[in-house]
Amino acid sequence: MNANRIVTLTTDFGLTEHYAGAMRGVISSINPFVRILDITNGVQSFDVLDGAIAISQAYHYFPPYTIHVVVVDPGVGGPRRPIIAIAGQHFFVGPDNGVLSLVYEREERISVRQITSEHYFRHPVSHTFHGRDIFAPVAGYLSKGVEITKFGDEIKDYVRFAAPRPKASGPNAWKGVVLKIDRFGNLMTNITVNDIPQLFQPVPPAFKLTIGKAEVTQVRTSFSQGAQGEVFAVVGSAGFLEICANRVPASRLVGADKGSEVSVMMG
Amino acid sequence: MNANRIVTLTTDFGLTEHYAGAMRGVISSINPFVRILDITNGVQSFDVLDGAIAISQAYHYFPPYTIHVVVVDPGVGGPRRPIIAIAGQHFFVGPDNGVLSLVYEREERISVRQITSEHYFRHPVSHTFHGRDIFAPVAGYLSKGVEITKFGDEIKDYVRFAAPRPKASGPNAWKGVVLKIDRFGNLMTNITVNDIPQLFQPVPPAFKLTIGKAEVTQVRTSFSQGAQGEVFAVVGSAGFLEICANRVPASRLVGADKGSEVSVMMG
Amino acid sequence: MNANRIVTLTTDFGLTEHYAGAMRGVISSINPFVRILDITNGVQSFDVLDGAIAISQAYHYFPPYTIHVVVVDPGVGGPRRPIIAIAGQHFFVGPDNGVLSLVYEREERISVRQITSEHYFRHPVSHTFHGRDIFAPVAGYLSKGVEITKFGDEIKDYVRFAAPRPKASGPNAWKGVVLKIDRFGNLMTNITVNDIPQLFQPVPPAFKLTIGKAEVTQVRTSFSQGAQGEVFAVVGSAGFLEICANRVPASRLVGADKGSEVSVMMG
Repeated sequence: MNANRIVTLTTDFGLTEHYAGAMRGVISSINPFVRILDITNGVQSFDVLDGAIAISQAYHYFPPYTIHVVVVDPGVGGPRRPIIAIAGQHFFVGPDNGVLSLVYEREERISVRQITSEHYFRHPVSHTFHGRDIFAPVAGYLSKGVEITKFGDEIKDYVRFAAPRPKASGPNAWKGVVLKIDRFGNLMTNITVNDIPQLFQPVPPAFKLTIGKAEVTQVRTSFSQGAQGEVFAVVGSAGFLEICANRVPASRLVGADKGSEVSVMMG
Repeated sequence: MNANRIVTLTTDFGLTEHYAGAMRGVISSINPFVRILDITNGVQSFDVLDGAIAISQAYHYFPPYTIHVVVVDPGVGGPRRPIIAIAGQHFFVGPDNGVLSLVYEREERISVRQITSEHYFRHPVSHTFHGRDIFAPVAGYLSKGVEITKFGDEIKDYVRFAAPRPKASGPNAWKGVVLKIDRFGNLMTNITVNDIPQLFQPVPPAFKLTIGKAEVTQVRTSFSQGAQGEVFAVVGSAGFLEICANRVPASRLVGADKGSEVSVMMG
Repeated sequence: MNANRIVTLTTDFGLTEHYAGAMRGVISSINPFVRILDITNGVQSFDVLDGAIAISQAYHYFPPYTIHVVVVDPGVGGPRRPIIAIAGQHFFVGPDNGVLSLVYEREERISVRQITSEHYFRHPVSHTFHGRDIFAPVAGYLSKGVEITKFGDEIKDYVRFAAPRPKASGPNAWKGVVLKIDRFGNLMTNITVNDIPQLFQPVPPAFKLTIGKAEVTQVRTSFSQGAQGEVFAVVGSAGFLEICANRVPASRLVGADKGSEVSVMMG
């Protein structure tokens, strides 16, 4: 279980500074045999929801017992607690600010501990970089097989927010939002099969979706089915309805942004 | 051959989302011993030629039997086929859209198979993310030593485009194009020693190269030989003639872009 | 000492091209067992000081005997020498252009060798990409245990610049500069506890710091202690005074840039 253990990084530290590099150093100093793999270090700065989406969309593809370090931490050095969570045979280390909310949502058995054993920290602990001084070393020791009970006691009041859900706005109408825009300009909405199942049928009934200045009336199977310049919907790889275009960024055609409203009317 | 096998990633998934991370997870779930190294995840979005340049400039530096996952795939979910190619003792997994064309160009012995054994896919297969559901798992199983014949039959009609070549435009004149602009603002042209050998001599004869609003008359050995503000040519590390400046982005001085015309007149 | 040896990369090659990928290939072709970890490939282009900051802030977190490849090399192909340095039980491979200056500053025992044994280079050596053809292969052979004496002779006149230090500008006044702006918009100044110790006390005396159009009068313990829209100082994780804001980029509020002046007056 501990040989070839994997530690992943999900942070908003970006790639232009040494921050993620320093974390890799701390982890491999403690456990030189661990394998460190990035999920992404490009989470939007200060954006806990964006981090929550990233980790929730990737952790479950890794092997059981992987340790996921998740550091999107605008409250670093303040009262928010450092935690270790176990959920679905995966381990998570990070701040207790809700960044694991969408992981909790996917899993039935969740156990969260507040990290209190300063013995496992790097000292002195910087007030602005717990990624390096708390989360990385705790992940390093976890990966070496230190018992999870040694890091601190279980807590039940860990922070957990609900992802924004689409709301009914009429008998056959809903309002959702754009959760994020990805590198390709696809607009990921918060609409899932549980919210408007009709849209996720192989042949959906007639509908009109309004987003920015675009009106969408087609769900296509893949990006390449779109006509030139057409804005359409697809069922994205994360299970959300996405607004797309074929080989051009839909975000540019649509004129919407993260947080923009998405209105759907069936029929 | 399978212990310490390397899998590389060359994609246009960028670094701000979880896409490459999900692929790393799928690969390491299938083969926890594999070593995953990035070539680049920063290929220009939707740009198959840019991906073809990236993989062709890097794969041959890796050890034999490395498995290169190459996903620049605007046609994902459409009729284009998933393939495994063997070329020059290297393995490649990706879409059959020509992204391996410049690899094929460098190698004499090429064998390409269409991947048809859905047994090796992640299910359900998303229509928009074959990187995660087809290419990553196939690379994982390949790295574990699954026989290549098990994935599907050999095909001969795989897609292969010719890179744009400079054309003679007069007795001592050629027209080429800018293939790409790199991070330093160097403009990589498509001119090689095979096209205009005179330019690649230690002391080239007199010439005039026109690109954007700049006129270039010097081939220098290295960037640092350029005078301040001078635009000049060098033989780039990939074998192409590059238009450069010393410690500033030539692209800014020249006012040219990817696809811009490059005219050369000798004498 | 050689099993599970780590090689790190600190470069300005960015992530949109194959450059760092080619280096990873060369290293792992020579030593397939080495572990390659990024410190950062996002150093500002051509910016030796920015590279010096990155490596100096990260190398010491890695295990002893780690080999750090540091390539910020605008003089590539010119007269500057390739070197191997040993400092504080760490190995460094890169150009002798001062990029290791801030490492030298942290360490007492330093030994630097000029790399002259072309036997360990990739041939032909490109004049524009020594990262691939000199530094990566030398790191690969070093990681396999080749004796350091084999690469070349020790030199004493290696390049070493002093980082810009704050200067007294009056009886209780200093002038410093902004060393860099990080991804979060924090402005890292060159002021340390050795320069103005009063500012680094738990409760600093009254002071006024001027930067861009902002006046700063508070040192806060962490980012989250700042009021909305407030610009304040913190003791950064690298030991420098940083100018920050809570969940927004201070750089945007302050209107200062890398190299901008920072004035401090006590009392």
